[in-house]
Amino acid sequence: MKFLEERIRRDGKIGAGNVLKVDSFLNHQMDVPFLCEMGKEFHRLFGDEGVTKVLTIEASGIGIAALTAQYFGVPVLFAKKTPTNNISGDIYTAEVYSYTHERTYTIYVSKDFLLPGDRVLIIDDFLAKGSALLGLLDLVKSAGAEAVGAGIAIEKAYQDGGSVVRGTGLRVESLARIASMSVEDGVKFVGEE
Amino acid sequence: MKFLEERIRRDGKIGAGNVLKVDSFLNHQMDVPFLCEMGKEFHRLFGDEGVTKVLTIEASGIGIAALTAQYFGVPVLFAKKTPTNNISGDIYTAEVYSYTHERTYTIYVSKDFLLPGDRVLIIDDFLAKGSALLGLLDLVKSAGAEAVGAGIAIEKAYQDGGSVVRGTGLRVESLARIASMSVEDGVKFVGEE
Repeated sequence: MKFLEERIRRDGKIGAGNVLKVDSFLNHQMDVPFLCEMGKEFHRLFGDEGVTKVLTIEASGIGIAALTAQYFGVPVLFAKKTPTNNISGDIYTAEVYSYTHERTYTIYVSKDFLLPGDRVLIIDDFLAKGSALLGLLDLVKSAGAEAVGAGIAIEKAYQDGGSVVRGTGLRVESLARIASMSVEDGVKFVGEE
Repeated sequence: MKFLEERIRRDGKIGAGNVLKVDSFLNHQMDVPFLCEMGKEFHRLFGDEGVTKVLTIEASGIGIAALTAQYFGVPVLFAKKTPTNNISGDIYTAEVYSYTHERTYTIYVSKDFLLPGDRVLIIDDFLAKGSALLGLLDLVKSAGAEAVGAGIAIEKAYQDGGSVVRGTGLRVESLARIASMSVEDGVKFVGEE
């Protein structure tokens, strides 16, 4: 079993509506030394890809992305969801549907920081239906940059996002792949069914 | 001149309405190796304080907080602005007024992760009128934890947040303190007037 799968089994909680709560170490409280280990693993997986930039989306992707990017020695760019006057110049935009919040929102990055020559590693905490990841891919394509892959913490492999995104040709590496989960039976990972 | 002040002078841009744009390295694209140097400096300043947790607020504080926390070997807890079903259990809340977005919003953390014994270092990217920082302090007090200080990247020292927050007795260390800025005259730091 992979180290993130062990951690999910130990500290993850399945709440009402079969929501996996990992807020004790991943997306509210962040176990930083543990996230550094995840970052090293992403570097082991993608270290030969000539990555020039890590791209993620606010908010819960930012910590993992920043701790990962330090092993590559490259900047992080995080896509924003909220209009702000802190961004200068022109932007690339994409549409993302949030199943958590049940609405579509526009994500964007400044054109100044996503460049045609960039080799982009996308990092995010969850992959379920793939909407956020496809939106980030759109941003990369709009810039004429190349996505070398996606490093995902937790993939809900019983939803179709993983196959949809891999179907575009993108290499997706997930540190934990959940095959099924329920309050009654707990979490089963891919390979355990 | 401090290293962040040098970087602001080199790469910061003053936009319409005297907004300081540092989106090329701090709060949109993040220069991760540079942010690591900021984290080391916060560790130099607060390393003797017995910090058990770093507290910040989504979204742009998260990267700096995570990269800082690794030098302390402690977790980050980030206050959320948006209700979500990813948080379990009871929460502490505080009100924060955003001058950027011109509205009041509620920030919250789970009671599970901010504990009476915690010695909390607050990290944020900006300190201007101090509303976010005072809100984070409220959360710490609600939990019966102790705030050992605040590590701020950029303080707008011509606004009153710094004196208000220091007036509560909190130690505030800012890596860059702006005395004044304008499109015409650029940025002047405290000590340069």
